[in-house]
Amino acid sequence: MTKGRLEAFSDGVIAILITIMVLELKIPREPTWAGLASRWVVFLAYVLSYVYLGVYWVNHHHLMSTVRRVDGPLLWLNSHLLFWLSLIPFVTDWLGESKAAPVPTICYGVVNIMAGVAYSLLNDRIAGQQEDVSLQKAHRHHQRKGRLAVATYAVALVLAGFGWTVPAVALYAVVAAVYFVPSKQFEASLGAD
Amino acid sequence: MTKGRLEAFSDGVIAILITIMVLELKIPREPTWAGLASRWVVFLAYVLSYVYLGVYWVNHHHLMSTVRRVDGPLLWLNSHLLFWLSLIPFVTDWLGESKAAPVPTICYGVVNIMAGVAYSLLNDRIAGQQEDVSLQKAHRHHQRKGRLAVATYAVALVLAGFGWTVPAVALYAVVAAVYFVPSKQFEASLGAD
Amino acid sequence: MTKGRLEAFSDGVIAILITIMVLELKIPREPTWAGLASRWVVFLAYVLSYVYLGVYWVNHHHLMSTVRRVDGPLLWLNSHLLFWLSLIPFVTDWLGESKAAPVPTICYGVVNIMAGVAYSLLNDRIAGQQEDVSLQKAHRHHQRKGRLAVATYAVALVLAGFGWTVPAVALYAVVAAVYFVPSKQFEASLGAD
Amino acid sequence: MTKGRLEAFSDGVIAILITIMVLELKIPREPTWAGLASRWVVFLAYVLSYVYLGVYWVNHHHLMSTVRRVDGPLLWLNSHLLFWLSLIPFVTDWLGESKAAPVPTICYGVVNIMAGVAYSLLNDRIAGQQEDVSLQKAHRHHQRKGRLAVATYAVALVLAGFGWTVPAVALYAVVAAVYFVPSKQFEASLGAD
Repeated sequence: MTKGRLEAFSDGVIAILITIMVLELKIPREPTWAGLASRWVVFLAYVLSYVYLGVYWVNHHHLMSTVRRVDGPLLWLNSHLLFWLSLIPFVTDWLGESKAAPVPTICYGVVNIMAGVAYSLLNDRIAGQQEDVSLQKAHRHHQRKGRLAVATYAVALVLAGFGWTVPAVALYAVVAAVYFVPSKQFEASLGAD
Repeated sequence: MTKGRLEAFSDGVIAILITIMVLELKIPREPTWAGLASRWVVFLAYVLSYVYLGVYWVNHHHLMSTVRRVDGPLLWLNSHLLFWLSLIPFVTDWLGESKAAPVPTICYGVVNIMAGVAYSLLNDRIAGQQEDVSLQKAHRHHQRKGRLAVATYAVALVLAGFGWTVPAVALYAVVAAVYFVPSKQFEASLGAD
Repeated sequence: MTKGRLEAFSDGVIAILITIMVLELKIPREPTWAGLASRWVVFLAYVLSYVYLGVYWVNHHHLMSTVRRVDGPLLWLNSHLLFWLSLIPFVTDWLGESKAAPVPTICYGVVNIMAGVAYSLLNDRIAGQQEDVSLQKAHRHHQRKGRLAVATYAVALVLAGFGWTVPAVALYAVVAAVYFVPSKQFEASLGAD
Repeated sequence: MTKGRLEAFSDGVIAILITIMVLELKIPREPTWAGLASRWVVFLAYVLSYVYLGVYWVNHHHLMSTVRRVDGPLLWLNSHLLFWLSLIPFVTDWLGESKAAPVPTICYGVVNIMAGVAYSLLNDRIAGQQEDVSLQKAHRHHQRKGRLAVATYAVALVLAGFGWTVPAVALYAVVAAVYFVPSKQFEASLGAD
């Protein structure tokens, strides 16, 4: 198994996921501003998930560039991550169509937590392959950031459970914003490659 | 015809198939746990097919890495395999939406048997190109595993025919689990490549 | 513009087209054999279009392998071909859902004629780049085959116009079958590449 | 981050966008010419957006071929462009289904303006990397063309705002036609590559 084909497959899946979400942006019934406005939660959910998947794509890239050997466990950990990412269009659609009702808001968070955990497991596996000290530091930094994200999601879940879905979604947006910039340390240790 | 482009096309098709299945995960009518729970068969069918397509992708990789020459018959045997795989989203949707009624359960099995047969034909063609003894052994091992899978599917079909769809789906899951780990022999004979 | 990226983009579009057609295979209302049987025209149309797109993919490959220079006109002739291919899922769906009513059968033929013409224009452009005599012969052979296909489609259109849609669809299947085997001459002059 | 993977991801997203639009070409209710004719606005919108995305693909290619270094800002500027492009299937569907009602016509234009602005920002970033004088000139030419396009869109928006949607859509078509031919200067300065 070559790294190139693993990257190409992962890119393909993420490119398709980020794109098919738009198929769930059903057009408003009325061709008016009111019709469009009635869809604003759907649109917001789309933007949020677009940023999430974009962030995963960029970070997945950085992570893959440090892979030393592609073996069975790595393949399956990667497929595991893609599985949770593949559910994002589903929970995005539900979050939007229900106008952020509590249960869909919780489900959105759960899928994102599981994707975060899957990413973390993949990161750990690849970190274990490193010998370079600066790369090990970069992976550790990544892991800390990941734990913080999962903790934030957990708070959001509790809020959504009490029916406070607006602050819950706001917290999801905060995590997306924090991840928006890829890890400087990774880039620095990788150079321009 | 280069091997690279054949791999890329196959990867593309499998990546799209694995991803578009999520489009058929229609959101629950009610934004509640009960609404989500009512969809559990659909979700289970999705997971099962995701694993199947993931297994085919990984094994297809291993198989392709031993191809020596891309000719017309190989191209068409590969397209034949992709044809049966392309029907998986359809039977998955039907299996889930019908809550595993007998006929959709049988159809799910038939499509998987045909995909298994198509894979086996492709495997035979590629095995015929090998001169290396260890690779020939790996291909034979693959073929034995494939026949066992088809036999298991056949049992599942009979069960589904009698209306026992739960054990039939359970057998489908068993085959997926057995295939989950790619052939050690293949990996060993191929090294890290 | 590199040839590699043009091939990759074309492959991507064809892989997606061949795959999304399955999204239009709506599941039967009843989970019974009768339900499945009621969909047989839809299924047949799917198989026919799958073969067509597979044939285009294989032949597009052979054609691209002889490209010497990627310029503006080539890019647009290629996009023109992809445009007509992109309409195949639409006419396939219409042909199947209408159970081969005359107008959808005619439209299916028209889209295939236009794709054939677009392929022919692309072929001519690439043929004009060749200096090798055996490749020129291969292109001419290709062009003859293309003209014969368009003539057959024209007959099918007339039949469909009189309401004889079954023989019209049969003629479409004949063309697909004739194209099923890629040109021996191309393969011979290209070697194994 | 390598340029190759950035190109492959962008190509993947554009290939999917250009292809999934066909999923929104719902088949006519009646299998008749009248049925097909009733869909003509939908079809026209499809052709217009197909050309737009084709133009973006070709120009994106030319632009990427001059990239010297892939860094964080470039990645996000590229994702930003893909975001606006990803909304094209949505506004295309709305424009067509509403038979070019004013609000959808305005939204179609706004999405295209934003895509144009995003392209321009990406272009500026890449222009800043150039040392070659002829490439700098090519980028400047590109920028002028882009500003002219945005100005034309602005006029179209005003027309649509007054309910004159036919001339507005005609102006969109004019911009597409002008962009149809990629910049000669770019091609000239890049050679055949």
